[in-house]
Amino acid sequence: MLRVLGDSISGNCLKVKWLLDHLGIRHDWQETDVLTGATRTPAFLALNPAGQVPVVVLEDGRTLAQSNAILLYFGEGSALVPADAYDRARMYGWLFWEQYSHEPYIAVRRFQMRYLGRKAEDLDPKLEERGHAALARMEDQLARTPFLVGGTPSLADIALVAYTRMADEGGFDLADYPSVQAWIGRTEAALGIGQQS
Amino acid sequence: MLRVLGDSISGNCLKVKWLLDHLGIRHDWQETDVLTGATRTPAFLALNPAGQVPVVVLEDGRTLAQSNAILLYFGEGSALVPADAYDRARMYGWLFWEQYSHEPYIAVRRFQMRYLGRKAEDLDPKLEERGHAALARMEDQLARTPFLVGGTPSLADIALVAYTRMADEGGFDLADYPSVQAWIGRTEAALGIGQQS
Repeated sequence: MLRVLGDSISGNCLKVKWLLDHLGIRHDWQETDVLTGATRTPAFLALNPAGQVPVVVLEDGRTLAQSNAILLYFGEGSALVPADAYDRARMYGWLFWEQYSHEPYIAVRRFQMRYLGRKAEDLDPKLEERGHAALARMEDQLARTPFLVGGTPSLADIALVAYTRMADEGGFDLADYPSVQAWIGRTEAALGIGQQS
Repeated sequence: MLRVLGDSISGNCLKVKWLLDHLGIRHDWQETDVLTGATRTPAFLALNPAGQVPVVVLEDGRTLAQSNAILLYFGEGSALVPADAYDRARMYGWLFWEQYSHEPYIAVRRFQMRYLGRKAEDLDPKLEERGHAALARMEDQLARTPFLVGGTPSLADIALVAYTRMADEGGFDLADYPSVQAWIGRTEAALGIGQQS
């Protein structure tokens, strides 16, 4: 069976779980604790030399890494990838933007505060400033369209909801972003994302 | 005609130019100088609120941003996007990795040294350390395959050659990465990338 090595505290890993569950693709989730070094063992590094979760091991043993690349692999051909080439390109744009302009600030600040126990005042102020810039960019889009690429959910919503719904754990108050808050609820409902994860 | 707003000092912009030239897609390149604030004008921000180049303006006026999303938009259907789903996913993986683990170190260190005139000893040491980690990861792959996703060039090679071929301007000596150096030459030859840019 398809295996997914992931850590349930990681939005990048949960993205993959949510998509597979949504598409009804059975898989064996192997909890892999980043905090205790499970991604640094020789066995893990043989699967992904970059030492990062998530990693997918296909039935034939081949592996895939990079959360958004995994979303594209399983999502292609589903309703979560727009058939229109321009809309598809906008979805790709959000996926790259997530990794470049959102995750390095919002996910990193959450990890440092919640899992490394750092205090807000000891963190690089860029994390807060650029995290808010990312949320403002999403607010601007989501005040105009129900989902990031128009009227229906796409892989972009899965990728971006992952850390956005946990942003408060990094000290970002979503009350300032009402359209983002409403979109989180819509996306969770559309994808069947539970409150447990 | 298709318009591309880009800065010729930016690898992210050159990626788009190289792909369009390679595919024979005519376009009007509009030089947009990031150093003198041309991406902060109201006219530019109306095209891309994120204030980043490259931006593509399609013939019907719709815009696209994010360099690797633009590569996918124009590259889909060409030989530069593998037909095999697994190979395509590996290409996507490299594209996301480029934006997350390569560009923020190699391109940023080059920009700070060459264009902001900063000295190596005044820079965040993480830029050098993680830049070398990125080059080592590429060396590992390129010692085994001629291009990043196997035997033929893909969009991953365009995306990654952009800043890798300029890495020396950021203080990274490519003599330590012989497979990367050989791949730069192969990729430039395969794509018709000239020495002038």
